[in-house]
This record gives sequence, C-alpha cells and structure tokens, in this order.
Amino acid sequence: MSKSYTRPLDLKHGLVNLTHGSGGRAMAQLVSELFAAEFANDWLAQGNDQAILPPPGARIAIATDSHVISPLFFPGGDIGSLAVHGTVNDLAMGGATPLYLSAGFILEEGLPLADLARIVRSMAAAARAAGVAIVTGDTKVVERGKGDGVFISTTGVGVVADGVKLSGDQARPGDVILLSGTLGDHGMAVMSQREGLGFASPILSDSAALHTLAADLLAASPGLRLMRDPTRGGLATTLNEIAQQSGVGMRLQESAIPVQASVRAACEFLGLDPLYIANEGKLVAICPAEQAAAALAALQAHPLGQQAAIIGEVVADAHQFVRVATDFGGERLLDWLSGEMLPRIC
Amino acid sequence: MSKSYTRPLDLKHGLVNLTHGSGGRAMAQLVSELFAAEFANDWLAQGNDQAILPPPGARIAIATDSHVISPLFFPGGDIGSLAVHGTVNDLAMGGATPLYLSAGFILEEGLPLADLARIVRSMAAAARAAGVAIVTGDTKVVERGKGDGVFISTTGVGVVADGVKLSGDQARPGDVILLSGTLGDHGMAVMSQREGLGFASPILSDSAALHTLAADLLAASPGLRLMRDPTRGGLATTLNEIAQQSGVGMRLQESAIPVQASVRAACEFLGLDPLYIANEGKLVAICPAEQAAAALAALQAHPLGQQAAIIGEVVADAHQFVRVATDFGGERLLDWLSGEMLPRIC
Repeated sequence: MSKSYTRPLDLKHGLVNLTHGSGGRAMAQLVSELFAAEFANDWLAQGNDQAILPPPGARIAIATDSHVISPLFFPGGDIGSLAVHGTVNDLAMGGATPLYLSAGFILEEGLPLADLARIVRSMAAAARAAGVAIVTGDTKVVERGKGDGVFISTTGVGVVADGVKLSGDQARPGDVILLSGTLGDHGMAVMSQREGLGFASPILSDSAALHTLAADLLAASPGLRLMRDPTRGGLATTLNEIAQQSGVGMRLQESAIPVQASVRAACEFLGLDPLYIANEGKLVAICPAEQAAAALAALQAHPLGQQAAIIGEVVADAHQFVRVATDFGGERLLDWLSGEMLPRIC
Repeated sequence: MSKSYTRPLDLKHGLVNLTHGSGGRAMAQLVSELFAAEFANDWLAQGNDQAILPPPGARIAIATDSHVISPLFFPGGDIGSLAVHGTVNDLAMGGATPLYLSAGFILEEGLPLADLARIVRSMAAAARAAGVAIVTGDTKVVERGKGDGVFISTTGVGVVADGVKLSGDQARPGDVILLSGTLGDHGMAVMSQREGLGFASPILSDSAALHTLAADLLAASPGLRLMRDPTRGGLATTLNEIAQQSGVGMRLQESAIPVQASVRAACEFLGLDPLYIANEGKLVAICPAEQAAAALAALQAHPLGQQAAIIGEVVADAHQFVRVATDFGGERLLDWLSGEMLPRIC
C-alpha cells in the first residue's frame, strides 16, 4: 500500500496498542510499514484478504503450527525464525517442497514495536533462506494480560511430487531408524535462557529448515517409509506415535543416539532425559534396511546432517513398545511423555 | 488414532491443563477424542504433521485469520463457527471455492473442556455446512493469565476458476457499489453480550459463510471488479481501503444502506456509527454499471442477500474520499477508522 501517514511507525520506542488491531489506519500502517515491507512479495503487496497463486500442478501439502514459545528470543533463534522453520519442517516431513506461508499474529498490548520488528525481520530472513514466500497474513491485538507478547500461527502450503508417499503408518519390522543429528539442543537452549542457567558452554537451539535435507534423503532412499521432526515430547514421543500408527515396536541403541556433551550435562543437572526434549532442526526417518547405508550417506553429506546416525530398528511387537538397549547392557522402556516437562518450548 | 486411554477425556467437568499441549499422551488424547472425532475426515485421521491433498488443477487461494473474539459465545454464534466463516469468506471474496481449512488452537490453562468441546462442535458443524474439510491442525496451551480462554487461527485453501480476477485495485469511476444486507449486526451482538446490555429485541450476529452468495454474484456479473467482507472497521474502512487501492473516490447514499432498526437504536444509544461496525456475514461488491441490475437480482435471490441494495457509485477523486449523501440532504466524509471502537470483535 502506498498510503502516507503523518508520522512513520516508531519502530524504536513505540508500543503495540489496541488500535494496531482495529482494522483502521493504525493497523494499515503497521501492515504496510512493517509486514509488507519486510516480507516484500507481489502477492502480499496486492493488499487483498487472500493471496491468489499459480496452479500447483501436483498434490498439495498443508501444515500449520501455532507458536507460543517463551521467551521470545533465545540462543540460536527467536519466535520469528522458529515460526518459519516449524511449518517448513512439517511440510518437508511429508515429502513436500514448501512454497507459501501465511502468518497470523496475536499481539499483546504493550509489546515494544522494536521487539516485533526484530521478530518480523528474523521471520523474513528465515523465509528468504528457505525459499518460501509469506503471501498473506492477519494481525490481532489483545489487551495487556490476555496474551504474552506475541503468538504467531503459520500455515504452509507446498507441493508433493508424484510417487512420494510418506506416512507414519508405513514402518515395517526390519526397517532401519535414522536420526539426522544431536538431540535436545532446542529444548535445553530455551530452558537455560528461561531459567537463567549459565552453563559453561552456551547451548544453541538447532532451529533450522529441513526441507533440503529431507529432499536429499528422499532422493537417496526412494523406498523411504516416513520422516518426522521430533519436536514437543522429543524423539521418544515421536517414535511412540509412529509405533502406534504402524502397529510395530522399536528397538534403539542408546550409545548410537548423538547428544552434545553440554546438553547431556545440562539434562543431568536438571534431571531431564534428552530423548524427551524438543528439537527444531532434526529429523528421524525410517527406511528399508537395504537403503539404510545410502540414506545415512545422504544425511551425512548435508550440512544439517553431519552427525546423522542409525539409531535402531523396527521390530514386530503387539504391544507397540519402544525399547532402548542401554550403555550398561540393560534395556529400558521409552514410554509416551505423560506429563509436561517443558511448557511453551515452541 | 486408535490408542485406548485409561479414562476418556472428561468433556463435562475437565479443564485444559499444560499437559494438553505437551506433545505427549494427554495431547494425543485431546486430539483423538475431540478434534479428530469432531472434524472427522480421512486426511486428519492419517495423524501426520501435514495433510497431503489432491492436485487442485487450478490457481489456489490462501487466506488466514486469527480469532481472538471476546466473549467466546455470543448471540448468533461463537468463536468456532466464526473461525470457519471468517476464513471461508476471505477465500470467497477472492472468487475462490473454499476446499480445506487448517486450525491452530491456543488454549489457556483452566479453560473448561466443555467450552472447548462446544466450540469444536460448532466449528465442525460450520465446516460441514460450508463444505470444507478441516484437514490439519495444531494445539498449544499457555499458562493461566497468558491467554484468554481460546484463540483460533484458521487458514483456508481454495481454488480459483480460470478467468476470475478480482482485486481491490480494479474499481473504476462509474462502477456501482452493492451491499448484500444490513450493517452492524455482528459488532452490536458481541457488544451487547459483552456489556450485558439487554436491548428490547436481541441482536444476533450475522456470522455466515458467504461463498455460495459470492459464486452466484460472480456468475451474474462476469465483469465483477471485486468483493470484500466488511469486518473490522466496518463498511467505511473497507471502502476507504478499496478507494486507496484503486485510486478513486466513492459516493454513497445513506438512505440506501440497510441497517436493522434494533442495531440502529443500539448504535445511537452507544454513540456508534453502524458504518464502522464489524460484519461477519455481509459482502460489499463493485461491478460495472451495466451489470448492476443482474448483480443485485442475484444477491437478492440468495437467502443471505435478500436485503441487498445498491448503495452508491465509484467516482473520480484524486483525494480518494468516501462521501455519504445524508438523509438530510447534506454530505459527510467517511474517513478511515483512526481509533479503536470495539476491540476483539473477531
């Protein structure tokens, strides 16, 4: 929009107020001077209530995520980049090429516009890096005490090539389980920031867009059964979901599961299990045994998969249990997460 | 999902707690026993983090809305049906046939599960009535005092037939402005509920899905320039946006603009102007003068357009002013809404 306002939006010292959600002039200014300026693309610039996009020419994938992470800024990322990565990854795990994002902002009255601008710029940069366009959006403002700074809901639309069929119900006994890298980095980065814990070596979130890693994996293993990003509830919960969907059990090798030393130390300090901690830049994949070597090589050849490993196998099990062979020669059952270890981690 | 839980979700007396957003067992139960049960469709039942849908075979439209309305239940609707109607309408205004919705829920700890179930059932009913499937979703829970019951972000995807090209920048001097029915019903229904105002005749929200009305209008007026649903900021703000996008002025006839007597009385009582009040089941359309009669007839022939009227015309005006010829022979300027009359109306 080209409307000129008496004064530009004060992105240094201004605060969000209820007029920014009114549908009137203040909202138009916020949309024009911040969102449209940062997300710059032709669809958004049209200023209609919907974006009209070219025929995709293939099956489409839709994924959605609402982001309520606290704090808004954390080592290795912020709610803006996370909102892009989370939804891009949900598309990528279905074998889709992400194309478009929508973004819905729920702002709390009193949020510094400088914080919002920092978040929006981070979102724009993450979207550019991932090659997706933020084509439409919505802004609401709630009164002080009825929100928490900013919540961002992103929905992604992508295309799925012919022949690609990945689903959580396709794991079969004998299949191999791969993990693309270390566990627990995101959850422990947020946790250490939130609790003001100063670990010797700072832990950074692994927040990243996984779609090129996923595409490389799929090319190397055409028989790939499924991919998942182990976010809330961590690897343990993700594998239990898959075991249930596919009606199988799983057996993991604890020594094969990569965890950074600093994350392991922080988990021990806090009494947490890294297998239940959220990740935002890792994928777990299941493929037929005969394609496992090629799949692993493809993961390790990608910058985001250098520490990829084969961590276990799918087994026949009427109980659909996920078991871990421990480093001490024993075995433990990895149950579903039943309580809440770390609220508002994404 | 087929997982069996020790006890079913207590949809009568239970409350939302943080475990419902943890990614673990409680969240899986909420998704399975409430969301998947009510929104029942094959895509959602697959239980993956994305829905994979058939090739649309045409241009696609994407629209998004975050709903933060307070109170959650109001005369004529609730946040659930509103979340469906709002997004269906944003698609329909672009000339799209709505097909799929995603839904992101941000729940506040302590929300009665009975309220959530009522909202989800209302959403499911509205989606069925509109012929759209809720194919994927996400649930987050925030601590007490960090949200306000429930916020719902919906994103819709639809298809746009070849040749359809509607946009806010296409209004031309001489075009005719049509309105599909009475103004202000939604805003005043919410306002009266919120403030506990007992008007003699209760005002009901006009919340409704407008896609079939929009399709009938488009069929009757192939040269249609644009449609918009005048939500936040009301008709006045919507027409100012269009005037700016198209670089034109507008002249309305106040006596031609339909307003229910009860809404007019409530507005007078509260010192509000119905032209600035939000609507959730009305559309404003602009078409070439020679198609106006056919367009009006199409609107009036539809159950949601019986009170449709021609309310004014597009004029050349370098200032892009929207003017109203009043019932008293004068003229007033309809400016953009500059403050916030009614926060959290949608």
